[in-house]
Amino acid sequence: MKKLLLALPALFVASFAFCQEKIDQNAIEKIKNEGLNNSQVENIAFELVDKAGPRLSNSEGYVRATEYAVKQLTDWGLENAHTEAWGEFGRGWEMEKSYVAMTKPYYMPFIAIPKAWTESTAGEISGKVILIDAKTEEDLEKYKGKLKGAIIAVKPTGDASPTFEADAIRFTEEQLDQMAEPPSESGGSSYTPEQIQAFRDARAFAIRVGEFLKEEGAALIIKGVNGRHGTLFTSSPRGYLKDTPEGIPELETAPENVNLIARLSENGVEVEVEAEIKTRYLTDDLQGYNVIAEIPGSDPSLKSELVMLGGHLDSWHGANGATDNAAGCIVMMEAVRILKAAGLKPRRTVRIALWGGEEQGLHGSRNYVTNHFGDRTTMELLPEHEKLSGYFNIDNGTGRIRGIYLQGNEAMKPIVDEWFKPVDDLIENRTITLRNTGGTDHLAFDGVGLPGFQFIQDPIEYRSRTHHTNMDTYERLMIDDLKQMAVIVATFVYQTAQRDEKLPRKELPSRN
Amino acid sequence: MKKLLLALPALFVASFAFCQEKIDQNAIEKIKNEGLNNSQVENIAFELVDKAGPRLSNSEGYVRATEYAVKQLTDWGLENAHTEAWGEFGRGWEMEKSYVAMTKPYYMPFIAIPKAWTESTAGEISGKVILIDAKTEEDLEKYKGKLKGAIIAVKPTGDASPTFEADAIRFTEEQLDQMAEPPSESGGSSYTPEQIQAFRDARAFAIRVGEFLKEEGAALIIKGVNGRHGTLFTSSPRGYLKDTPEGIPELETAPENVNLIARLSENGVEVEVEAEIKTRYLTDDLQGYNVIAEIPGSDPSLKSELVMLGGHLDSWHGANGATDNAAGCIVMMEAVRILKAAGLKPRRTVRIALWGGEEQGLHGSRNYVTNHFGDRTTMELLPEHEKLSGYFNIDNGTGRIRGIYLQGNEAMKPIVDEWFKPVDDLIENRTITLRNTGGTDHLAFDGVGLPGFQFIQDPIEYRSRTHHTNMDTYERLMIDDLKQMAVIVATFVYQTAQRDEKLPRKELPSRN
Repeated sequence: MKKLLLALPALFVASFAFCQEKIDQNAIEKIKNEGLNNSQVENIAFELVDKAGPRLSNSEGYVRATEYAVKQLTDWGLENAHTEAWGEFGRGWEMEKSYVAMTKPYYMPFIAIPKAWTESTAGEISGKVILIDAKTEEDLEKYKGKLKGAIIAVKPTGDASPTFEADAIRFTEEQLDQMAEPPSESGGSSYTPEQIQAFRDARAFAIRVGEFLKEEGAALIIKGVNGRHGTLFTSSPRGYLKDTPEGIPELETAPENVNLIARLSENGVEVEVEAEIKTRYLTDDLQGYNVIAEIPGSDPSLKSELVMLGGHLDSWHGANGATDNAAGCIVMMEAVRILKAAGLKPRRTVRIALWGGEEQGLHGSRNYVTNHFGDRTTMELLPEHEKLSGYFNIDNGTGRIRGIYLQGNEAMKPIVDEWFKPVDDLIENRTITLRNTGGTDHLAFDGVGLPGFQFIQDPIEYRSRTHHTNMDTYERLMIDDLKQMAVIVATFVYQTAQRDEKLPRKELPSRN
Repeated sequence: MKKLLLALPALFVASFAFCQEKIDQNAIEKIKNEGLNNSQVENIAFELVDKAGPRLSNSEGYVRATEYAVKQLTDWGLENAHTEAWGEFGRGWEMEKSYVAMTKPYYMPFIAIPKAWTESTAGEISGKVILIDAKTEEDLEKYKGKLKGAIIAVKPTGDASPTFEADAIRFTEEQLDQMAEPPSESGGSSYTPEQIQAFRDARAFAIRVGEFLKEEGAALIIKGVNGRHGTLFTSSPRGYLKDTPEGIPELETAPENVNLIARLSENGVEVEVEAEIKTRYLTDDLQGYNVIAEIPGSDPSLKSELVMLGGHLDSWHGANGATDNAAGCIVMMEAVRILKAAGLKPRRTVRIALWGGEEQGLHGSRNYVTNHFGDRTTMELLPEHEKLSGYFNIDNGTGRIRGIYLQGNEAMKPIVDEWFKPVDDLIENRTITLRNTGGTDHLAFDGVGLPGFQFIQDPIEYRSRTHHTNMDTYERLMIDDLKQMAVIVATFVYQTAQRDEKLPRKELPSRN
């Protein structure tokens, strides 16, 4: 039974750590040596990326990855490695066939990926394509009654013209300096309220178009998505919920392919396609799972306390999720391997967590935090809330660490400044920012007032080529960057485990 | 009957044009106005790129493009627009189905294009993949007798790791300055003789591997080719010749896909695929064709003389050949349209040529030159050789003109310098180089001592994304660059047509 602690945020005052951090230089050297000279990141990458394959939550690939991780962590000597259910996620889904090509006015194979959790077509279907060009409800009216059994094309909205920016980039000194500044008044958003409203309206209308096509009984949607040059970005559908109503089979397709359909159609050229989607739902076990394993603490007075590190193990389905986020799991697994292989004995217990369901809303980490530490909506806290010193996360792709986001936790600044010094030879223009970064699992910890941090990483090809794309493959990994990350994370985790005090906390958030 | 003139190269001396070029500023302004304000390049691009589709020599798409071009040029008021056979090319070829996916250890659709002129598979085939890892004849021995009916994977040799260079580039001032310098002793080749020999050896062994696989009776080759992020570069097979022996069906596949097969296989994971190629040969007409049309000269004393402009109309089959070389044809068609629409009356006859068979060895232009001007192997010249003032070619993609290659014709330098001045407002760092550029149809003219020139163009995505790829689509066109090119070409053609003398020639080449 769980004992509930009621949070009293107004009374909580962050305690600043003015004392000099004790750095165990010998331990740091052992970590560096193990991580840089005996690295296993390529082996872990092969297992998670190539061998497990796409790791959509609750898919067979996700299960393969959890099985590998549990066995591998156990083999390295971690204890209590296991999958831990966090609650109901929903259906698994497997892609068994994906094919689409234009057949008239000439043959052209398309680059496409079935939308995650989409239905199958009725075998291979073929026929004329109807291009939907609708921006308003009135625009939709003109298609009413005409789409029964039809193959629909929906134009991409993005730009696929030549790019004069490199696909892969590293942060410049100037960009990092800017990042180190306090956030601007706008909270750092580069969008105006009007733009945000326009995005919301566009999304709402896109949902409405989907409903309309379903009402009208269309047979297949071929949706042009963002991307260029054969790279395409998949969407984030909600079809995993067990009570999801049946929809229309949908292929997310390279913008060049659907632009071609559109230009031909708009100029009076009839377009035909042939397509087949075959998918399969997995409904035997609707629970969601994280992978958990530990290096038990060595100090009797501190071993009940925790340092956590993690990243999400699930991916989208269009490729192997190499940078999003096998990379983070490779780094975190390698970090705990390094600690074990280097023969270090952390005083506090080190716990690694590889999260599921992140891509659908940080489900694995949010629920884990609710189950173990506290409920962010009620701010009812559990006893373990007092025991967690800090959580470190990696989920910004394959790029090396350039610094850390402190999520407004000012007391952490002098601490991480000391921690970075022994690894500064591995980091160019190392940067500490108080700014928040969002979108991933450290937020689950931050949301209940626990120190949860994500590192600043070089973007490499994350925004241009890999994040939720069909091209997030093994080739996209920068092996040397993964090694650097694993070493730095291992030192941070070790130092969190060793210091006399737990990490300083921000004021507890008020109930949400 | 053709009258043959024997060339006397040793006696021929280039006559330098020291006289100031007369520039008809009024005509230039008309050209600029028509080309920049009433441009038709988007319409021509739609017709050649999207509507005709891939234009592999003697394919249905090539025929559609020739039919469009003849009709369009006629509609614009050009005369004698027609397709002209230049001799035997070989078989046409149509792709009717292209599908390949990995099915074990998990499902993954691949990005692939059948090799041009490849055979069909025996319907949809599936099975275990055998990875061929052979660098020598001895390596091949170990596969002997094991490949009957097998699906073969051949690893890519290129690098698909993250790219820190932009896909699209324009020439810098420094690069152009360097281009303006005389070529270095090595003739400008960036390869050592050893590297060139290594390329040749590798190519010869690749052919040997193909022969071996055929001897062994493999069912399908899945060959990883160069490229990244979904872009793949097709090869240049010779299967169009009418007596080509039957080969093994072959898919040219994204390097990421075949790398995945390779890493899995090399680590003991069995890989299965399913695939289908369906192709069709066109053998009714083996002739090769160019498109020819004219604006007849207006000066009775000069109308029998010619100015030619052109580019190749054929493309590879993996995409729509937008930059290679619809772009050149769009520009040349637009250039003659501009001359007509601007109401200009060139003194000499302007003849546009859209070449076939370029991708297989400049066949269309070489044979046209042989048929009309002279034979480069014997240097036996025809009477029309005396009549051609010059030929201008576009085949360096979609990028705007930054200057011209003079192919060693020094006497042209002061002339083009004068010609560029009235369009210098459209060109940044305009550059004239005496250097040669190769690889395309102006060489056919240069080869018989006729002034044939190709422009310096910004590379944009030519080497990274478009040249012979599956991503050479309409999106890759820079419409404003095409407009600039058409205007400049129109002024060059017009000025060649108007000047009192024909363009100066280099010394005639000796017999090859």
